[in-house]
Amino acid sequence: MGALRRKLTRAGLPGLLVTFLPDVRYLCGFTGSNAALAVTRRAARLFTDGRYTTQANEEVKAARVQIGSSSPAVAAVQWLAAQPAVAMAAYDPAHTTVAELTLWKTSLPSHLRRSFLSALPAAFVEPLRRIKDQDELELMTEAARLGCRLFDHILQFIRPGIAEMEVAAELEHRARLLGAEGMSFETIVASGARSALPHGRATGQPLPRRGFLTLDFGIILKGYCSDMTRTVFLGKPKAEERHAYQSVLEAQQAAIAAVAAGTSCGEVDEAARGVLRRQGLAELFTHSTGHGVGLEIHEPPRVGAGQASRLTAGMVITIEPGIYLPGHYGVRIEDMVAVTRDGRDVLTPSPKALIEL
Amino acid sequence: MGALRRKLTRAGLPGLLVTFLPDVRYLCGFTGSNAALAVTRRAARLFTDGRYTTQANEEVKAARVQIGSSSPAVAAVQWLAAQPAVAMAAYDPAHTTVAELTLWKTSLPSHLRRSFLSALPAAFVEPLRRIKDQDELELMTEAARLGCRLFDHILQFIRPGIAEMEVAAELEHRARLLGAEGMSFETIVASGARSALPHGRATGQPLPRRGFLTLDFGIILKGYCSDMTRTVFLGKPKAEERHAYQSVLEAQQAAIAAVAAGTSCGEVDEAARGVLRRQGLAELFTHSTGHGVGLEIHEPPRVGAGQASRLTAGMVITIEPGIYLPGHYGVRIEDMVAVTRDGRDVLTPSPKALIEL
Repeated sequence: MGALRRKLTRAGLPGLLVTFLPDVRYLCGFTGSNAALAVTRRAARLFTDGRYTTQANEEVKAARVQIGSSSPAVAAVQWLAAQPAVAMAAYDPAHTTVAELTLWKTSLPSHLRRSFLSALPAAFVEPLRRIKDQDELELMTEAARLGCRLFDHILQFIRPGIAEMEVAAELEHRARLLGAEGMSFETIVASGARSALPHGRATGQPLPRRGFLTLDFGIILKGYCSDMTRTVFLGKPKAEERHAYQSVLEAQQAAIAAVAAGTSCGEVDEAARGVLRRQGLAELFTHSTGHGVGLEIHEPPRVGAGQASRLTAGMVITIEPGIYLPGHYGVRIEDMVAVTRDGRDVLTPSPKALIEL
Repeated sequence: MGALRRKLTRAGLPGLLVTFLPDVRYLCGFTGSNAALAVTRRAARLFTDGRYTTQANEEVKAARVQIGSSSPAVAAVQWLAAQPAVAMAAYDPAHTTVAELTLWKTSLPSHLRRSFLSALPAAFVEPLRRIKDQDELELMTEAARLGCRLFDHILQFIRPGIAEMEVAAELEHRARLLGAEGMSFETIVASGARSALPHGRATGQPLPRRGFLTLDFGIILKGYCSDMTRTVFLGKPKAEERHAYQSVLEAQQAAIAAVAAGTSCGEVDEAARGVLRRQGLAELFTHSTGHGVGLEIHEPPRVGAGQASRLTAGMVITIEPGIYLPGHYGVRIEDMVAVTRDGRDVLTPSPKALIEL
């Protein structure tokens, strides 16, 4: 909250309305599903409803809690408008719907409707969140290591004939027993020709005797998301399959090696894409190389072609190139990587040499 | 899509932009995470990205698929603007951010920026979704019954000393094995004094020898959500605890009995609230009686105090009164109820007499 207040002062903003829940959680610790946070240079107040009275009082730091029965955001807007030193308040247009803005304006006294609320010209809380502090890096390392333990576990479980969904169920069950609050996205277990679907959810399809199996999964630990992908092979791969895997691995390692403070996201993407281009495989790499991760599974920056934004120490991104041959197979390998002052830390050290099961 | 087109014609709208993913799924079947659907009176087109080429071609009904590398919504807006008979297109202000609208407008030729996009004056797709057809009711019944099977299963598993999180893990694992795609919200397992938290997530806390245990959980089956709550007792309840449970049960049964086509949501809420008021417990009932459920876990209508909107055959709502004594205990009982022409169907027939474990 201190960094936010300094930023408010620098930007000349007397008041800020925060309604995006990951931002609310980041700033004051509240984890409920219905909340708004109002911040001025002197005070901060968290608005929520009666279901969360006990929880809000336990969780919220650096803000007073106010319980109400109407919309928390409307209550926050009205509170901001009633503060003597607050002539205007900024809101986040990327996380405010057109309908919400209309409702908030209507809730203000008529002389404030036109001028009191102002759209932030750029993301305001997110750039703070993008740089993880030491506590956050420790939590994210812990979340990532839990993911690696799940991968170790699931390798013992995988065998031809069991359904993709059983693999997902086992992985998610073990995640819970190891302390995860939940999964950070729908677990991807894609086998055989389904491995060519970059987002192939687990289905009832039995694992084949022979073929690739892509596992892409993440857990949530104390709010922070992990994300990793490994592709393994059931049976013996043909030379072509082995070559495809090695190409993706080489691309992934090249992108990891390119991660450094000051490097642009586009350069990291190009490190992976260039390897695949030289192998004639670039057209099969149909997505970006990676993305930021933290309280949300997908955060800025986007690590994609031409992205000019530069990496900074404290960022945590994924590096996950893949190639997909529709109807045949796909391969993706993904690590979480923290940008450090002098390079990078790979947070997901599970083995990446092709595993044959 | 037929009903949507008739509604477009009646409303005099030449074009509609749909970006809210549950609406997209409802209208054309696409389940990916990045999509926009453009509908005119003659044509419909689903825009998504390269990760979903195969999946979109498999899933999408009644619309052509167009893969692109830029924002699907921008592509959809540009496509709508290029249709000869489409002089304007409506968008949903409840699911469009201020930033998205700005981006879409900027992507249009300058003479169309001010006038081409128009906010829908009221929800447009959601009222169609609110009334479930026979296929949807069958899926939702199946989802609800799967929830009941999970409750049966978990009763065998619960014993003092195991952690709340182990209960959640077991429930979620079994859900997966029974075919659920995932949970429809974070599983609530709240024991002892934590049962007084209406949204008490499962923690590492061991189940007590004596006290209430609230289980509130739901699964997703073919996209449709289930939602149910049962509160059981570990050990022997005191007379006061038994009385609290019976009061909530009576309130819940009264609200279910009030469910009928033509009845207002406020009347259903009052049926539950009145019972608790007569017991002097109304102040401990700190939330609404229920909500609609379907492709989303929370959909309109809200079954809350004073809500004038009326029930119609085909709606599926939850009925879930509860009372909460902070620091002591809480009780909530929830069923999914389908509104029928001549009354109601309870989709979650698990027993509600107080279970002592």
